[in-house]
Order: sequence, then structure tokens, then C-alpha cells
Amino acid sequence: MTPQSEDFSAWYNELVIKAQLVDRGPVRGTMVIRPYGYRIWELLQADLDRRIKEAGHDNACFPMFIPESYLRREAEHVEGFSPELAVVTVAGGKELEEPLVVRPTSETVIGEYMAKWIESHRDLPLLLNQWANVVRWEMRPRMFLRTTEFLWQEGHTAHIDEADAMRETMWALDAYASLARDLAAMPVVPGEKTPGERFAGAVRTYTIEGMMRDGRALQAGTSHYLGTNFAKAFEIQYQDEAGKLALAHTTSWGMSTRMIGGVIMTHGDDNGLVLPPRMAPHQVVIVPIGRKEQGEATAAEARRLGAAIKAMGIRVHVDDNRPQLSPGFKFNDWEMRGVPIRLEIGPRDLEAGVATLVRRLPTVEGQGKEPIPLERVPEVMPGILADFQSFLLARAETFRNDNTRAVDTWDDFGAQVAGGWALAFHCGRTECEDDIKADTAATPRCIPADGPAEEGACVKCGLPSAYGKRVIFGKAY
Amino acid sequence: MTPQSEDFSAWYNELVIKAQLVDRGPVRGTMVIRPYGYRIWELLQADLDRRIKEAGHDNACFPMFIPESYLRREAEHVEGFSPELAVVTVAGGKELEEPLVVRPTSETVIGEYMAKWIESHRDLPLLLNQWANVVRWEMRPRMFLRTTEFLWQEGHTAHIDEADAMRETMWALDAYASLARDLAAMPVVPGEKTPGERFAGAVRTYTIEGMMRDGRALQAGTSHYLGTNFAKAFEIQYQDEAGKLALAHTTSWGMSTRMIGGVIMTHGDDNGLVLPPRMAPHQVVIVPIGRKEQGEATAAEARRLGAAIKAMGIRVHVDDNRPQLSPGFKFNDWEMRGVPIRLEIGPRDLEAGVATLVRRLPTVEGQGKEPIPLERVPEVMPGILADFQSFLLARAETFRNDNTRAVDTWDDFGAQVAGGWALAFHCGRTECEDDIKADTAATPRCIPADGPAEEGACVKCGLPSAYGKRVIFGKAY
Repeated sequence: MTPQSEDFSAWYNELVIKAQLVDRGPVRGTMVIRPYGYRIWELLQADLDRRIKEAGHDNACFPMFIPESYLRREAEHVEGFSPELAVVTVAGGKELEEPLVVRPTSETVIGEYMAKWIESHRDLPLLLNQWANVVRWEMRPRMFLRTTEFLWQEGHTAHIDEADAMRETMWALDAYASLARDLAAMPVVPGEKTPGERFAGAVRTYTIEGMMRDGRALQAGTSHYLGTNFAKAFEIQYQDEAGKLALAHTTSWGMSTRMIGGVIMTHGDDNGLVLPPRMAPHQVVIVPIGRKEQGEATAAEARRLGAAIKAMGIRVHVDDNRPQLSPGFKFNDWEMRGVPIRLEIGPRDLEAGVATLVRRLPTVEGQGKEPIPLERVPEVMPGILADFQSFLLARAETFRNDNTRAVDTWDDFGAQVAGGWALAFHCGRTECEDDIKADTAATPRCIPADGPAEEGACVKCGLPSAYGKRVIFGKAY
Repeated sequence: MTPQSEDFSAWYNELVIKAQLVDRGPVRGTMVIRPYGYRIWELLQADLDRRIKEAGHDNACFPMFIPESYLRREAEHVEGFSPELAVVTVAGGKELEEPLVVRPTSETVIGEYMAKWIESHRDLPLLLNQWANVVRWEMRPRMFLRTTEFLWQEGHTAHIDEADAMRETMWALDAYASLARDLAAMPVVPGEKTPGERFAGAVRTYTIEGMMRDGRALQAGTSHYLGTNFAKAFEIQYQDEAGKLALAHTTSWGMSTRMIGGVIMTHGDDNGLVLPPRMAPHQVVIVPIGRKEQGEATAAEARRLGAAIKAMGIRVHVDDNRPQLSPGFKFNDWEMRGVPIRLEIGPRDLEAGVATLVRRLPTVEGQGKEPIPLERVPEVMPGILADFQSFLLARAETFRNDNTRAVDTWDDFGAQVAGGWALAFHCGRTECEDDIKADTAATPRCIPADGPAEEGACVKCGLPSAYGKRVIFGKAY
């Protein structure tokens, strides 16, 4: 496999295939998510779905074919999405009268139904979510990061006023940030997008941005306050307590299979994937070693131990069914596939009554293989997994901090965004953002929510800063 | 609402909208699944997904756009599905070189990848499943039963030989039959389809058939043994133990949102839905009654009781947030929406220390409202729900048996399929099936798996029976 330092993109592209996360689809830009990759998605999905439901949202399912005319009702929205649309023109053997767009996102079709379902202020807030596939035709596809078809959830809500809609927008942003930290061990930075980076049709767009191990940024989830833009376009109105008709304020927010790409690029190394235990299909793999009777004895112990670990609610896999492969091959294989904890049981381990525990990365400098008494393995495993999860988060946080720097000159800016993030003042003008992008390939990632109040001159053009704090700039996926 | 006896179709069409299960989609034949309907799907999905995983299958996700050329590789398959396809011809602003079919089912695209992933007999069986949306352009759409886009799971597996593939085919059929009985309280009949009713490309197709309350049949899940048809078309081959190349034997099986239509038509009545507790979004609804202080006291008790019932792992909803509606309206509303158990708490109930329990249907003749001491409600509820679930299954079984009859003359056949199922001998010729359909609108639903061995003359043409047992005939959805 190509080392990260040599060509990070090549490393990524090779790894996603080799680790059996995905395969290239038959149509350019599409992907087949294989069981190992799909299980990661299921783990993420289960956790996010729980958060979404606990906060009072209901899941629903809207059609994926949207009449072209719906998109045209919101001018900015159609302009933003038109170049990326896939269009069904023939169905049931006939040319369709009105072409159907395969949803790139569902504000328009959901807007139509919100208008139908909402009558009174009593019907608000209306809190909907759907898990769906969406299609955006990609010119530069990349597995998980930008695929023509991808999986996501999209929340769509309607509220009585701006204040309530903004509370919702920030709830979703916070849910995404927590999920990224807790599950994916990604120390993302939440913040607002600059006007030039807003979602097509939004009044305000918020994002969580993670730093990948090549110093680039990945937008890993977004939450939009849509104001009354879609409410106007689709007549989402309610009768208020005084009986007067008013426009609803709507939001939308999404997180997708892109997140899996984020996990790969936040934690992976030249030996392959490194999966945070909470998103790992196998948190622990047990490899019995030995031939003939010895092999049978270690395999039996591996199965017994596997059952005991499983009883602790841990996802464990016993690799006892591939006699044609050497232990060394298996060790490398599970390392490449990012399994957090490997337990080896050889004849000598068995004699000594231990399993040899190997972490995917040493959590303490110089820490190597560690023998653990067999009977203690199940009870210590939850702690070992939790420590490994924390270690990954802390390591990623250190890496991000080490590669983020406040800069005040254009020279420093260019040097910093070459391999990390720059905290810089910006004038807020989209033309100036475009100039910066043309010169350095860097874009404003977000106005960090927790950035300290500070004033200064735009790092590019010298005009006064627009946001009262520094903006994060970086190259992005 | 139109009564069932007057116009069963109208009853169904009105009810699915009124109960807020679905709304008509913006494109003809599509549906919006609303939260109340989607929750039913999630409950079904969770149970079936568990069964699928426990039996060793892995979930994956294949692209929904399939190159047109893939479908043409299996002659019968393309012939069967061609009339129903939706086709993307434009994407990213350009005419596509090869049109893309929106999957009507995924044998072809999955076949392509099975061929890629399978090398040795060690890679078999390959047991895959996906939860997906599929598109079949429908000329006579009907919410849940036949919609242009619908949700389903599709299992796709590859095996070393026919015996192993047939074991899988029958496993899936059995899983569907159990799910229908256990969850949906639908006493379905499993059996094989006659050749004329087979899936396009299958060697053998199996089905579960349920009887709806108008006497018609609903095919609620199918499982196919595909032989080596798709293996030949896509070169799904493996090296056997002797190193020789052999074709894999494949299967596919699917269950869809159609099942929800089955639940509605198996149990519903003129007052609305009747949901089996295991598929009910709310298993219990508590309606507090009374105004001002009395209303506050009953609402407080309703919330306390709701929490206690929830703690038992029961899905309970407290209807304490619609002061604008009368108790009578709420009772009718929950009845129409099919909630199995309603608990009413009025001021007099509170005084007497009881809740008034009302079942959606009396499980015992003449049984009406029943007071239950408040402190006993949580402990008795699991039993009450289980009894209600069993009652629905038994009632549906009695109904089906009462409306199924062995017939041996053509006159009896016509009379029987007018409102139920006929058990009849059949010659097995597709032309004869077509004649029967033209004359009576009835089709062979299945050769019931547990039908006793019997020989006789074809009820239509008099030729000897082909199956060694009677075939179920009925009109179908």
C-alpha cells in the first residue's frame, strides 16, 4: 500500500478497497458498500437515530422522484443543485410528460407536504427525519467522500418563529458534534459557514469540520436555518393564536456516509485502518495459533473466551475458520482492517493461562504486547476499549492543535494552509474568498463557535474583519 | 368512511390516508410514508433484520442505478421487468451514453459483484442482504400494495450446490412466515408458486399468502431459488476442493412495505385500523378526562401511569396535549388509528383508584369496558397485549378457514373464488391458468407446503393434476 506521506489520496483510495469497506460501483462515481463498511454505517446510524428520536423527531419516508418544477420554486436552491441532478425521462416504457429529478436533497418535496400538514400553531414544531439515498452527479468522485449516490439522514423541521428554528438548528449541530466526538473520536470544530459557503437556499449554514491526517478539512455534517425561504416557496403557513396566518421557519440538517471517510482519514496509518471501538464492526478479534491438536486446543479456548467477551456486550470475532492462512497473515489482515484489540492465543499462552493482547496502536509510548490472564480478559476488556477510544480522540485533538495556527500575514497564511489550518481574519466578501481559493486552494471552513472575540485586518485584502473573530481556513475534501 | 361491506377498496384507500399512515406522493403511484406508517415499518424491519443477522447474513448496500446492459444478461429477467422500468437518461447536465435503470430488484448488480468476490469454495455461502428502495412503474398503483417506489429488504445469496441454496430459499420463506404470524398476526400459507407465477429468472419461487378480509389473497413475501441462471449470466463461479471451476447456485428473497397493507386488510374494520400490539407504534394510549383541576389531576395520574407502563418496555402514549379536543373525539381517533389498548382515566376513575381499559376489539364475546386498579395496570399489561395479539391471529385464522373450501366442479370454483379461496386440482399448464384468470379473475396463489397428498382432475380442463395436491386459487392484490 502507498504510504500516507508519499500520496495520501492514493493511500486512501487503495485502503478503502483493500479493507473491503467498498468496491467501485458499475456506474462512474457510485460505490458498493460492502458488509464491513456497511456495519460501520449501521453503528453510526443506530446512535444518531436514537439521538434524533429522543429529541422528539419522527422518521418518515418521502419519494425520491421529485417533479422538476418543485426545485424551481426556490431560486437559489435550483441554481445550486441543477448541475448535479440525475433525471428520469422515461418510465413504464414511455417518455414522461414532466421529467423527474432523483432527489439531491428533499427540502422541496418535504416542503410541499409540510404545507399540507400544518394548519395551526398547534401543529408546530413539526420535527421530521428520514434515512435515505440521495444522488448528486459528481465530477470528481471519491469513495465515501463524494459519490454520485450516497446514504444520509436528512432532518426537516418547521417552527413557529426564528428563535425556535434556531434552537433546532443548533440542536442538530450539537448532536453531530457529539456524535463525531463520542463515536468517531473526531474532535470536530462546530461553527457557522461564511455566506459564500452556505447551502443553496439557507439563511445560515452551520458545519462541523474535522482535520484529516494530511491537514485537510472534512465537512462532516451540516445544519441549516432556512428562514422563511422554503416556507414562501411552498406556502408553509400556520394560523397563530390570534387566528392570523404566518409563515413557518424551517430547518434542515444532514449527516452522511461521508463520515466513514472522515474516520478513515482521522485515524488511519500506513498499516491500514484504525477504527474507534464504538464504530468498529469487530471491537476485538481473537486469533488462535497452532497446528493439529495444539491448534484445536487454542481454537477451543478462543471460542470459549469469545463467548465470555460477547456476554459483556462487546463485538468480538473469533478467527478460527481460515486454516489456509498463517497467523502472521491474519495479524496483518486485522491490523489493516483497523480492529482495535487483537487477542492471540498460542500453545505457550494457553500453557501460561494467558492471552496476548495487542492494541492497534500503542496507547502508551513503547507499549508492546501484553499478556493477560485468560480469566481476567472479559472483565478488563470494557476498560481497555474505552481507553483506546479516548486515546484516539486525544491523539486526533493533539494533531489538530499542532496543525492549526493563528496567522496574520499572507505569507504565513500560504505556508500554514499548505499542511494545516490557519486561523485568520477575513473581510467577509465572497470575491475575497474566491481570490484566496484561487491563490492557495484554501477555503473558509467555518467561523468557529467557540473562537474568542478578536478584531483585525483581513489576511488577504486588509479590510476590517467581518465576524468579530478569526475564521478557520484550510484545504478541504 | 366507506364501510368494508360496501366497497372494500374505497375503505382501504380512505383509511390509509385518514389514519395518517401515508399521503399520496407528488408523482402518480408514489407515496409519502408518514411517521405513524413508518414506525410500523421500523418495527417490522427491526424484527426481520435481527432474524436475518442471526442466521449469518450481512447487510450491504448496492447502487440503485444499474446499467441497462446488466439487465439484458438474463433473458427472462429483462423480459419480466422491462415494462416497469424507470430510466435515467440525463445526469450532470448531459445525456448519458448508456441509460441507467433505477433498480426494480438487484439480482443483476449483485450478481456482478458476487462474481468478483467469490473465488473459492471457501467463500461460500455468501449471504447478503440489503434494505433499499426499488422502483417498478405501476399502472394501477395502490398505497403500500403497489407503489412506483417502495421499501423492502432483498436477500441475495450464493451457494456451493442446489441443496444448500434450497435450504437457504426455505429458510427465508420460513422467516417470512414466522414474521407474518408472530408480528403481524397474519396466518399466512407458505407454498410454491406455479410455473406461470414464478419470478422472472427463477427456477422455483416460494411465497407466503395471506387472506384479506374481503377474501382476496395478498402475496406478502417471496423467496426464489435461482438455480445457476444468474451465475451463468454473471459468471459467478468458484473453485471447488478439487480445484475445478463450478457455477454457484443463487437465491433471492424479499419482503416489502406491502406487508403493512396486509396488516391493514387482515385486521381492520369499519371503525378503522386494528394493529397487532407487536406492530403498533402505540401499544397503549392513555386518555385523561376532565376539565380544570379535575383534568389536571387525571392528566398527572395518566403521566405517572404512562411512565410505569413504559418502564415495562411497552410503547405507550399519553394523550394529554390536545385540550381543544373532546374525550369522545380522542377515543374515536385512537380507535380509527388502531391502537390495541386504550386506558381512560376520568375523575370518577381516579376516585375509585382505577383506569378504564378498552380493547380495540372485544377478545371475549360481549366483553366491554373493564376497570383495573391503577397500581395493577403495569403488571397486567404485558399479558393483556399478548392475549390481544393471539386473539387477532386466531380470529384471522378462523376467518381464513371459514372462507377456504375444497372444490371439484367449475361451478363451485367460480362461487368460491368470488369471496374466498378455493382448494382445487390443477393440470399445471399456464394456458389453463390464463383461462381460469380470464373467466374468474382468480389465479393460483400457491401449492401449499402442508397440503395433504391428493390426486384429481383439473378443476378447469379435466386433465390430471400436476402437483400431487390441491392448489390454492383466489383473487389477489
